[in-house]
Amino acid sequence: MKTVKVGICGLGTVGGGTLNVLQRNATEIARRIGTRIEVVHVAARSVNPQCDTTGITVTDNALEVVANPEVEVVVELIGGDSVAREVVMAAIDQGKHVVTANKALLAVHGNEIFARARDKGVMVGYEAAVAGGIPVIKAIREGLAGNRINWLAGIINGTGNFILTEMREHGRAFTDVLKEAQTLGYAEADPTFDVEGIDAAHKLTILASIAFGIPLQFDKAYTEGITGLTADDVQYAEVLGYRIKHLGVARRTAEGIELRVHPTLIPAERLIANVNGVMNAVMVNGDAVGSTLYYGAGAGMEPTASAVVADLVDIVRTMDCEPAERVAALAFQADALSDEPVLGIERCETAYYLRIQAKDHPGVLAEVASILSERGINIESIMQKDVEEQDGLIPIVLLTHRVQEARMRDAIVALEALESVMAPVVRIRVEQLD
Amino acid sequence: MKTVKVGICGLGTVGGGTLNVLQRNATEIARRIGTRIEVVHVAARSVNPQCDTTGITVTDNALEVVANPEVEVVVELIGGDSVAREVVMAAIDQGKHVVTANKALLAVHGNEIFARARDKGVMVGYEAAVAGGIPVIKAIREGLAGNRINWLAGIINGTGNFILTEMREHGRAFTDVLKEAQTLGYAEADPTFDVEGIDAAHKLTILASIAFGIPLQFDKAYTEGITGLTADDVQYAEVLGYRIKHLGVARRTAEGIELRVHPTLIPAERLIANVNGVMNAVMVNGDAVGSTLYYGAGAGMEPTASAVVADLVDIVRTMDCEPAERVAALAFQADALSDEPVLGIERCETAYYLRIQAKDHPGVLAEVASILSERGINIESIMQKDVEEQDGLIPIVLLTHRVQEARMRDAIVALEALESVMAPVVRIRVEQLD
Repeated sequence: MKTVKVGICGLGTVGGGTLNVLQRNATEIARRIGTRIEVVHVAARSVNPQCDTTGITVTDNALEVVANPEVEVVVELIGGDSVAREVVMAAIDQGKHVVTANKALLAVHGNEIFARARDKGVMVGYEAAVAGGIPVIKAIREGLAGNRINWLAGIINGTGNFILTEMREHGRAFTDVLKEAQTLGYAEADPTFDVEGIDAAHKLTILASIAFGIPLQFDKAYTEGITGLTADDVQYAEVLGYRIKHLGVARRTAEGIELRVHPTLIPAERLIANVNGVMNAVMVNGDAVGSTLYYGAGAGMEPTASAVVADLVDIVRTMDCEPAERVAALAFQADALSDEPVLGIERCETAYYLRIQAKDHPGVLAEVASILSERGINIESIMQKDVEEQDGLIPIVLLTHRVQEARMRDAIVALEALESVMAPVVRIRVEQLD
Repeated sequence: MKTVKVGICGLGTVGGGTLNVLQRNATEIARRIGTRIEVVHVAARSVNPQCDTTGITVTDNALEVVANPEVEVVVELIGGDSVAREVVMAAIDQGKHVVTANKALLAVHGNEIFARARDKGVMVGYEAAVAGGIPVIKAIREGLAGNRINWLAGIINGTGNFILTEMREHGRAFTDVLKEAQTLGYAEADPTFDVEGIDAAHKLTILASIAFGIPLQFDKAYTEGITGLTADDVQYAEVLGYRIKHLGVARRTAEGIELRVHPTLIPAERLIANVNGVMNAVMVNGDAVGSTLYYGAGAGMEPTASAVVADLVDIVRTMDCEPAERVAALAFQADALSDEPVLGIERCETAYYLRIQAKDHPGVLAEVASILSERGINIESIMQKDVEEQDGLIPIVLLTHRVQEARMRDAIVALEALESVMAPVVRIRVEQLD
């Protein structure tokens, strides 16, 4: 049986998981592809105690792995974007195929990386970069290849989803849950990447490219975190029949592509509204297939390794093919990428949840309704729940129909100028996802 | 740009959808693969009024399409297993690639068809045969290729799921909902294939083969329908925190493969328990990735066409590759298929829901508990809800721990022999799917 030799750079959580899965399932994988995948060289600052590196060359210099003439595929699991980028580029330059789980690297430098890979006739696999073990890159690039994709929406950050799930299920405050998530190891000491939506925006940037056939444009993604969400809003959303999720949304419109990460109200009966804890899910809507959903573990040692190994299997199977016989890196042929613009958030259109803290006097609801109506914003429903007055204020909570962000901003300025409105208006976007 | 010419046999719902999607999305598909897919020949008894066949040769003889030397890929969407089988075999014999949505054909004749295709070096795509537009064949064959699959469980018949959803949401009786489903066109005039689980067993047979690397063995699948379910059992399941779904389950055990379709209680909080109406979903559990789920429309004109076109795209991309560079037909190399036995249902192991209609006298619960305990069957919980006596009988409703079917059958014989038990014991299998 033929053997393909592989090098792994980085032997942390995902790297260690990849080595373990390749070793444990070596026979099962060979039964599938008729080829053995053997790890011969590993770069690690220290050997992962969960791994057996017997018979494998171990170095602390990733470029040694890349330079090893036996190594035909380089797996980059270092993370970050300085050394990782150098390793990926060096591997490509030496005509080696690459697998990476590095969403930050691809979202920011992907266009350059894929162009270089195309020049050199090598593949760059990145299933593990989005939603961990869920094969959603494959679903969009290949499984839905007959469709014109209309939109996709994903819960693609497990930390954020864990926090929102705890807030909803136990009525807890954001900061309280964040502290617990840090203790449990679900959240980093500096949680900015997760809770501000930057990690999700990296992944969304990749998903949007392969869904619509546009270059990677991370700098155009709009990002809004979940740090400002209150337990009250989570509860009011519930009363209205909705759940709040931190969603990455990419949508194709007549004007261009919407690319945005923000807290979002979703109808409670949608399957994706019921994806809880650290789990991930991505909905993809195509013109032929309608709405589909892909669910699973979005992170972790072996779930992410599952995706890395799937990429290795694809590469090993097609490494002797002509480049045209392989799946295009960004799903579309490089010369067929579209220059549809990514829209600024002010041009995006969603429905809205508004919470307006106002003095409890008879005319205030009429004033609110009038401001919205003057701007062509229709009210979908108003929360009927009796809420106790606090400091003489009651919340007016309502849902609007779809409207362009710019118009909603204008309405909010007018609402906040009302004499009876005593605090900044809380607005959260709403998506029906039907 | 290169063009590949395709023939479609059968222009009904799926065939018509396939032609329409190929025409409408011709540009989007060509942007992806750099090749045009052109339908040049169609076989239909009558032209589908939803289709435009301008410029396409139309015949009523499918073998003419197969024989057309221009046609490089034959799409078989005739259904059934006489003409369809002839068409598929003829196409393979003439060295043409095939795409089919025909689960019955593959579940029963697939081993023969794939062997012939291997001899001739052609591909047979069948994504559309299971769960319509959901790319679950691709997910298992490729996306989870690094895993040893432990089990899978699917709602893979939309008609059955529609009926169960209506029974649960509106407390309706099976026959009542079935009639409505027939009126709506969700169920056939003869609903046997759907409600008795035969259609689901065809699909499950295919899924099990590609998950475990075993030959197709439809004749070994255990099939139990939903016709006997009552609104009471649906309601009692709900009280216990479960939903009843018609599930296809395939599980790898130390003794062999479980392959079974039957009504199943699933914890209500599982995502798959919330898949309603005609929608489909498949859970796949792998040793590395854990549990994943794939959700979407399991039938219909364009959802199924989406899967057919995805197969066409894969075939067009890899038709000039060496056979070893393509994905193996049943996910595993033909010479690596395993002879693990498919277990008879009596050797399968699940938990159970039991409803025992008994005279309301003090000793009966103790008698029931004693019969179960003598056979090593542990009770997990007993329904505490007060139920009105009917004709002097009350239902004892309980859940057991996992036990082999044979032992449960023995217990049921003993339970039914009790003087106070006045009707056959209702037993429904339970799966935790965690």
